[in-house]
Amino acid sequence: MDAAEFRRRGREMVDYVADYLENIEQRPVYPDLEPGYLRSLIPSEAPLEPESYEDVMKDVERVIMPGAASPACTELETVMLDWLGKMLQLPECFIAGTDGHGGGVIQGTASEATLISLLAARCKAIRRVQATNPEISEAEVLSKLVAYTSEQAHSSVERAALIGGVMMRKVPTDKTYAVGGHMLKQMVEEDKAAGFIPFYVTKHSGIECVCLFQFCATLGTTPSCAFDHTTELGPICNDENMWMHIDAAYAGSAFICPEFRPLLNGIEFADSFNFNPHKWLLVNFDCSAMWVKKRTDIIGAFKMEPLYLKHENQESGLVTDYRHWQIPLGRRFRSLKLWFVFRMYGLKGLQAHIRKQVALAKEFESLVRADKRFEICAEVIMGLVCFRLKGSNELNQNLLKKITKSQEIHLVPCQLSGRFVLRFAICARTTESRHIQQAWRHITQLTFELLQEPSH
Amino acid sequence: MDAAEFRRRGREMVDYVADYLENIEQRPVYPDLEPGYLRSLIPSEAPLEPESYEDVMKDVERVIMPGAASPACTELETVMLDWLGKMLQLPECFIAGTDGHGGGVIQGTASEATLISLLAARCKAIRRVQATNPEISEAEVLSKLVAYTSEQAHSSVERAALIGGVMMRKVPTDKTYAVGGHMLKQMVEEDKAAGFIPFYVTKHSGIECVCLFQFCATLGTTPSCAFDHTTELGPICNDENMWMHIDAAYAGSAFICPEFRPLLNGIEFADSFNFNPHKWLLVNFDCSAMWVKKRTDIIGAFKMEPLYLKHENQESGLVTDYRHWQIPLGRRFRSLKLWFVFRMYGLKGLQAHIRKQVALAKEFESLVRADKRFEICAEVIMGLVCFRLKGSNELNQNLLKKITKSQEIHLVPCQLSGRFVLRFAICARTTESRHIQQAWRHITQLTFELLQEPSH
Repeated sequence: MDAAEFRRRGREMVDYVADYLENIEQRPVYPDLEPGYLRSLIPSEAPLEPESYEDVMKDVERVIMPGAASPACTELETVMLDWLGKMLQLPECFIAGTDGHGGGVIQGTASEATLISLLAARCKAIRRVQATNPEISEAEVLSKLVAYTSEQAHSSVERAALIGGVMMRKVPTDKTYAVGGHMLKQMVEEDKAAGFIPFYVTKHSGIECVCLFQFCATLGTTPSCAFDHTTELGPICNDENMWMHIDAAYAGSAFICPEFRPLLNGIEFADSFNFNPHKWLLVNFDCSAMWVKKRTDIIGAFKMEPLYLKHENQESGLVTDYRHWQIPLGRRFRSLKLWFVFRMYGLKGLQAHIRKQVALAKEFESLVRADKRFEICAEVIMGLVCFRLKGSNELNQNLLKKITKSQEIHLVPCQLSGRFVLRFAICARTTESRHIQQAWRHITQLTFELLQEPSH
Repeated sequence: MDAAEFRRRGREMVDYVADYLENIEQRPVYPDLEPGYLRSLIPSEAPLEPESYEDVMKDVERVIMPGAASPACTELETVMLDWLGKMLQLPECFIAGTDGHGGGVIQGTASEATLISLLAARCKAIRRVQATNPEISEAEVLSKLVAYTSEQAHSSVERAALIGGVMMRKVPTDKTYAVGGHMLKQMVEEDKAAGFIPFYVTKHSGIECVCLFQFCATLGTTPSCAFDHTTELGPICNDENMWMHIDAAYAGSAFICPEFRPLLNGIEFADSFNFNPHKWLLVNFDCSAMWVKKRTDIIGAFKMEPLYLKHENQESGLVTDYRHWQIPLGRRFRSLKLWFVFRMYGLKGLQAHIRKQVALAKEFESLVRADKRFEICAEVIMGLVCFRLKGSNELNQNLLKKITKSQEIHLVPCQLSGRFVLRFAICARTTESRHIQQAWRHITQLTFELLQEPSH
């Protein structure tokens, strides 16, 4: 949609809202629909080719308005997460409209998705132990739980453990900054062999596995966009009865392209998975997509049923109560964003967007590689290029200071193997090759100035 | 703003967005401002009288655009929470722009505010105990913590305790469905005298108080809009070193009117307080306003500082990092909603809105009281009327079924002292006396039909 169409459609939307409010008294206060009404009214998959804005708006009137905010808000979300799950070729067990037990939900941010998965895993572990050892208190079990994640995982993973009141250990990474199976295995064996198990063996033999309850794998780490080896990690988690959560907040969007999809292999071992369409799939903040293999795992973690929240379909199993899937109680109608974007771009349009941005990152990478003063610090797989000036951390810190001060481009650093590294991230919808060329000219100009300074 | 002006302003706003995107390359990528730039550019209090839309938009260009999304997003939020805090006459210690140590933040929902306050209280209690008893593990302290709330509190309070992994006890209420000081005191004494203290006295004498860590008071409960006696409860919490959180999710908006402000008395004893402007102050969902007396209590609970989130003002104390105040990492620019609403209505306009809605509730109350078949079940203080047909719960359940089925009005029930009660809530911006009269005619018509049925 170009600017001229945006202006036209925006005006139409303002009128649509005004008309709605002016005539709201003519609408029924409560929808007269059976649970599950929406699924049959729309296709079961996202379109391949873009559709017209008119067609989407016609469907707003036909599909959404009869279901008002509720149940349309819930039902469109379930179906949109199915569409998106199919775009990612998720295993069928994660798709709600199947015989499986899974499904998707929109969380605000990946932090919330991670926390929710950790709380579900914690609850499941506590119940499992108490089922066979009812004499052990919840607090006692809690004190023995250990969660694992990569030392390169996002800070929100560690924060989730802090909130959940459980210990989290950080698994070291290989030289590509990814966690492999043997590293997790070794740590798990250590924890079982020392500290936790002796305590348990002494006091309550036979419940060793309680101390291991979750592993959070990252596909596309924040510092360098590294990919944990999920196909190795998955079987270990499954064997040890550990919940595996996969966080692909940034990189997940790319899995809609068949050439990137192999990076998601191993998802079949996972209990939950999330990524943020608001990061790289042209959907506005906030919109973090999360799937679980077993709906009951997540619902069971903190279900509350006061009378003022009861409804007649409570026990039918036909209705999804997303309030049990998240921290807040109230919800916004965020699936509309997905619906509009999927239809206005089509799967092919979204794939083209991802491919273009990866190509731009590769273009920047070649510019860096062609300049002997610089080095690339991690494999460029998606839209992130980690690079630095060969030399000291101080030199690179000074370069970043110059870049920030000149206010033309904005880079955020990271630390890789003790080295201060600059991160060039491509994510804006309108970025073109000329911006890449311009950014690199700017960086080399500042580098030239920096290296002229007497201190160097 | 009437519909015609909404259409005009909406179109202008669409053009504003389109212009912004078309010319984004001309804007600096990074703002050139000192931390705290925004406060001096706008008044220190909300206007009394409404302002014009033009004036607000001029200030968007003058105040917000130079600060882009950041730091403008953070700084406007801090100042808007100060404006709102002053409208509520909060004690100065909760206002950020003072010599105090407090301040406000926008959370998504009251559930999140409650959870955040519980986590802050939990962290503070654990640290306090470990400071004097370093040999006690965190898990052990955790297992001894007890939080308290009213049996009439919202389900999200109990859910917060579940997420935080701590025990929560429900304090019984008096005949107005409110918690008084003596009821809390008695329960606290019981807990200290039995179970927890003997255990502690035996193993680690001198740390009795650890078992009491939070009381969540409610001003305007969900079932009946009852008000806990905060002036009695506050001193008990302070004496026992318990964190007091006050949740006034719905009723809080009314405290901008001097005649309702006494209901907030006791706030001076509280450590944290929240209410939802999205419920009753004409601000769209989501927007839950939360204040804390000591910023460090909330920040300390789960601070994480990875390199990619570091910034140059990190340690200066001049910058508020709201990511430490909440569960998610990313944030939307929700304070714009407050800024627009406060200025378009003025304090007087907002007070008029509250007063009109309370008057409508009183009007409905008189209609109920004039009909001998019905009874009022709780004092009508704000916009909620709890009523029922004199007679069995079944009778009232059947009445509600008829009301729901006819799709003209929507009521949500509650349980008060074992009785099934209907709740008539006034909250839509456009509700007028004619709607109240119409709703009551409708209810009495359905009642007439119900009582004609052979089963009654």
